[in-house]
Amino acid sequence: MIQTPYLLFLGDAPDALAAKVAQGIRDFRPAASLGQLRLDACNADMGLIDMTVAEAAAAGCKTMVIGVANCGGVISATWKDVMVEALDAGMDLAAGLHNLLRDEPDLVEAARRSGRVLHDVRVPTVQYPIANGKKRIGKRCLAVGTDCSVGKMYTAMAMDREMRKRGMKSTFRATGQTGILIEGDGVPLDAVVADFMAGSVEWLTPDNDPDHWDLIEGQGSLFHISYSGVAMALVHGGQPDALILCHEPTRTHMRGLPEYRQPSLATLRDTALPLARVANPACKVLGISINTRHMSGEDANACLAEVEAEMGLPTVDPFRHGPGRLIDALAEV
Amino acid sequence: MIQTPYLLFLGDAPDALAAKVAQGIRDFRPAASLGQLRLDACNADMGLIDMTVAEAAAAGCKTMVIGVANCGGVISATWKDVMVEALDAGMDLAAGLHNLLRDEPDLVEAARRSGRVLHDVRVPTVQYPIANGKKRIGKRCLAVGTDCSVGKMYTAMAMDREMRKRGMKSTFRATGQTGILIEGDGVPLDAVVADFMAGSVEWLTPDNDPDHWDLIEGQGSLFHISYSGVAMALVHGGQPDALILCHEPTRTHMRGLPEYRQPSLATLRDTALPLARVANPACKVLGISINTRHMSGEDANACLAEVEAEMGLPTVDPFRHGPGRLIDALAEV
Repeated sequence: MIQTPYLLFLGDAPDALAAKVAQGIRDFRPAASLGQLRLDACNADMGLIDMTVAEAAAAGCKTMVIGVANCGGVISATWKDVMVEALDAGMDLAAGLHNLLRDEPDLVEAARRSGRVLHDVRVPTVQYPIANGKKRIGKRCLAVGTDCSVGKMYTAMAMDREMRKRGMKSTFRATGQTGILIEGDGVPLDAVVADFMAGSVEWLTPDNDPDHWDLIEGQGSLFHISYSGVAMALVHGGQPDALILCHEPTRTHMRGLPEYRQPSLATLRDTALPLARVANPACKVLGISINTRHMSGEDANACLAEVEAEMGLPTVDPFRHGPGRLIDALAEV
Repeated sequence: MIQTPYLLFLGDAPDALAAKVAQGIRDFRPAASLGQLRLDACNADMGLIDMTVAEAAAAGCKTMVIGVANCGGVISATWKDVMVEALDAGMDLAAGLHNLLRDEPDLVEAARRSGRVLHDVRVPTVQYPIANGKKRIGKRCLAVGTDCSVGKMYTAMAMDREMRKRGMKSTFRATGQTGILIEGDGVPLDAVVADFMAGSVEWLTPDNDPDHWDLIEGQGSLFHISYSGVAMALVHGGQPDALILCHEPTRTHMRGLPEYRQPSLATLRDTALPLARVANPACKVLGISINTRHMSGEDANACLAEVEAEMGLPTVDPFRHGPGRLIDALAEV
């Protein structure tokens, strides 16, 4: 297991979205998030105390978590210096980057020298099976999105937290690096070999009590051409009883794809539901989660009311208002 | 490159479908397929001369190709004995199995001893990019199926052969081990890491002459819950201008999934086409390819006529009647 508390490394994040790993940890494990480390070019801020490596070590941080994506697929020399410094100061490193900490000879050498651990949570550590599609006991809810990074993980985590609060049986099932860093286990789905994607989701959400719910973290979008295959494996491997549609209304194009527009929520529903019913004919769309982070309170409320009227489904921003109405709907399935 | 001619190893194939790798090589590289090697329990037959390893070596075979799937994910001791014998007799080995030849110490040792090569065509040898969805020059046709193993590869290869015969510009793009063994290159898509699936298909089908067609080999099915993610990555990464719907009418359930039924061709069309139009709004369904292998000539003709009347699209069995009518339709796109 990864040792807490954490120093969250934000690097040179160009915007808040690039640091969504750090944001998720900050939101869902606040007690474990002692401080943040930002480089000069950083435009993200978790509202934590800014710390140098030395200050974090003195404050008792056990692990520096890389809380920012590196788009180019390279760990830069600037990042490397801070990472080596953290290892030398006695902290472990944890990251979910595509290029692995363990593949960097200078990090391996620094970890060896200081007796510290490099955690690459993106690397699958299990030989997953091929999906068999057999009906499993217990219930499953999957968040699907009109785009990537629209709040699917946040929605599933907030629902899990609310269900536990109500005394219902639930488990958050992480499928991405942030979720795994928060939850402590899960499947790093986008690093799984294609043939085993759906099987890894079946493995992650096994038979359970009939009244137990898995809240499955979604990935990508059926409409995001770069990652739609991953989203599809979740829809079929997860054999969900319930879908939550997730949307971010202020986007002007699909994330990373300037030529592509987001589908409407109605189109997402009409695409995702028939596909989900291949694996689970009883599947329903339960409600809608809107990420209104970039809207005023007034605009947010107007947007939620409009979507709810159009779609005829409970519509919430789980961050602003909590996921309570989604859980009310789920309790009736 | 893999050296020809081949000895096709059929092992203990329980049925003809299990040996579809060998069948594809036999059909599309007949001159390179010198003989077959069958174990006692084998129920498949390519109609080639049965050879022992010694006979094949004497006949000039350069490579023993593993032409049969090993369902359990283990290379059995019986297979191993024949493989070692082939290496010792001076032949290379080529396979597209999930478990790699190179991971078997006794095969590695035998290859070292005899100076032969182990070809694992399933292993990606390229660092594929993340898909960017940018419009590419040239045209692309993708075969999509109601199920796995319904003739998608055969259809694409037969269309490519017919187009070349007519002097049209075309390339068969292999996405599975059989196709790669036949064509000499391609992307082993089901072994690609999830995040890079669609990108690998973009890489495989780059910009080309405006009147050039890539005939892309399909994989899995959007309706096969084990492999639907792979099928989705082809629909979006391939950004096809044209789809061919592929079907095998005698199946009683989805391959390997006794609880699942095949969708109708109309359902496949209504699911695949809107998804394909996310990446290429101009995409059309061009025609239908029916695999009538298990039907009489009379039944086959009746089936094709019925489907053609219902769907209003050119409907052929490319094996029985050739893919000519599909190419006629394609020439008008």
